[in-house]
Amino acid sequence: MALSEFELIARYFYRAPAHDDVELGIGDDAAVVSVAPDHSLVMALDTLVAGVHFPADSRADDIAYKALAVNLSDMAAMGAHANWMLLGLTLPQLDEAWLDAFSRGLKSLADEYGVVLIGGDTTRGPLTVTVQINGLVPQGQALKRSGAQAGDLIYVSGQLGDAGLGLQLALRQIQLDLPPARRDYFLQRLQRPSPRLALGRALGGVASAAIDISDGLLADLGHILDASGVGAEIHLEQLPVAPEIIGLGQQGWSLPLCAGDDYELCFTVPPERGALLEARLRSVDCPCRCIGRIETHSGLRVLYNGEKVETDSFKGYRHFD
Amino acid sequence: MALSEFELIARYFYRAPAHDDVELGIGDDAAVVSVAPDHSLVMALDTLVAGVHFPADSRADDIAYKALAVNLSDMAAMGAHANWMLLGLTLPQLDEAWLDAFSRGLKSLADEYGVVLIGGDTTRGPLTVTVQINGLVPQGQALKRSGAQAGDLIYVSGQLGDAGLGLQLALRQIQLDLPPARRDYFLQRLQRPSPRLALGRALGGVASAAIDISDGLLADLGHILDASGVGAEIHLEQLPVAPEIIGLGQQGWSLPLCAGDDYELCFTVPPERGALLEARLRSVDCPCRCIGRIETHSGLRVLYNGEKVETDSFKGYRHFD
Repeated sequence: MALSEFELIARYFYRAPAHDDVELGIGDDAAVVSVAPDHSLVMALDTLVAGVHFPADSRADDIAYKALAVNLSDMAAMGAHANWMLLGLTLPQLDEAWLDAFSRGLKSLADEYGVVLIGGDTTRGPLTVTVQINGLVPQGQALKRSGAQAGDLIYVSGQLGDAGLGLQLALRQIQLDLPPARRDYFLQRLQRPSPRLALGRALGGVASAAIDISDGLLADLGHILDASGVGAEIHLEQLPVAPEIIGLGQQGWSLPLCAGDDYELCFTVPPERGALLEARLRSVDCPCRCIGRIETHSGLRVLYNGEKVETDSFKGYRHFD
Repeated sequence: MALSEFELIARYFYRAPAHDDVELGIGDDAAVVSVAPDHSLVMALDTLVAGVHFPADSRADDIAYKALAVNLSDMAAMGAHANWMLLGLTLPQLDEAWLDAFSRGLKSLADEYGVVLIGGDTTRGPLTVTVQINGLVPQGQALKRSGAQAGDLIYVSGQLGDAGLGLQLALRQIQLDLPPARRDYFLQRLQRPSPRLALGRALGGVASAAIDISDGLLADLGHILDASGVGAEIHLEQLPVAPEIIGLGQQGWSLPLCAGDDYELCFTVPPERGALLEARLRSVDCPCRCIGRIETHSGLRVLYNGEKVETDSFKGYRHFD
């Protein structure tokens, strides 16, 4: 098979630049864009490998969706608007039906958030999808991991553990008698996470630190604590968790704490900005819940109804051994 | 094997941002950089797959060098300065000696051109290297493929076909009695191409179109012709080619014309800018040679000492069937 790069791009991915800020899109040696004044450029890259990050027989549109969604989630965690993406697509063969579905999955999510595909590379090899995403944030407003201070309140968006339960359902690692609609809900949360871009932007000038929850709350909140040189206390009973996960008892707590893949945001807010946060949250349709507080003393302490919980026992819990 | 992303990055790739324009480097959800005013952002991405773009047992420093060099070449072809890169590295296992060599290969070339690694992703899977490169160009000065006009002169930099001969030597597809130094020269041209960044920047406001020669002169000049809606005539005897390739006779012409991997620049210049071009070329240490002229009539005509040459006969010649 000779994978003809230019035919492939022209057939499936080429669209004329839809935005004024794209000076030159797909079809040259590189893309050229203009960056709005008084903004900083925010850049991330994530790779998904078949057989590692998704089963090799996953639907192509689901693969494309997720490859972009995890990158958009990084933009959300920085408080950025996502503008442009590049795609590195490695394919074992030229399968037109697969490519058609892939490009539709990518386009649907890109269009929803106003992201333009401006370039990339297609190569032959084991199925691997790399999305490189570029966004803008007003200068000085990027949400870093390193700004949390003792006394700040810790919040999470949405609901945690849904994607982890979805994965266990998909892999038949758990027996749960669920109505089809609920089963579909958890699978969707795994395959089609909603990047919290509006929330991230609403947190500019409000949150002192932020991260997206890709590896589980304990690991990702741990990154904020490490980067900020602080500790924290969180309260399990305040975690936003589906009733089905509550029903699993103690074993269920590993899902919100360690399973990851939720792509919700975890962020910290100084208490004096509480009213500002409330006002900002009203402008975005994304529930957030306070789950604890940043402390001077390093380490992460997890309480359940006031009692200390040993987090070592949670499956998949690696980063705080 | 659990590939611990953060340990890996910290050990091999982390370096504090060396440039004022890097607001936030490796270690957050995304990198943040500031773009100089009155400049456009130029972005490209190229993927190299083991067993496809390089033998799986290639030296790690050579793989890293080439993965970055081909991206720098795209910046050169746009007339841009290369500033920041992201790395997507998929590895079958955590091999410290390999990673150490890879990071040294990447760093040596990055330092030579002042490029900073600001982010990326490491994943487990078949060996694949994606470099995403970002550069800046003064607004309106990007060198596109689409600006060539009838009457413009066609130039190429350096020497064409060296990398193609290097590949044939590496694969033992050709028997040539070469002195060791000459053999090494051709292998180096294959494994360590010199991206023509200084030349590309010198061509800003001079060249009407430009491309880097990655797929061979016929294919890449063809892209300029297609994008510009013009044709051209080139003269084989004017091509800058090594004497060893000349010695191969007619069979040798497929190397400069079709083998690719030279990463020289092909560009067009309106004849009235000839003196300006000469002045600019004196400022960069890179020989360039005029090989032909753009014409109104579409298609690419190849002459040798005034006689038309049938290019269909050249091996690997696909794009002008």
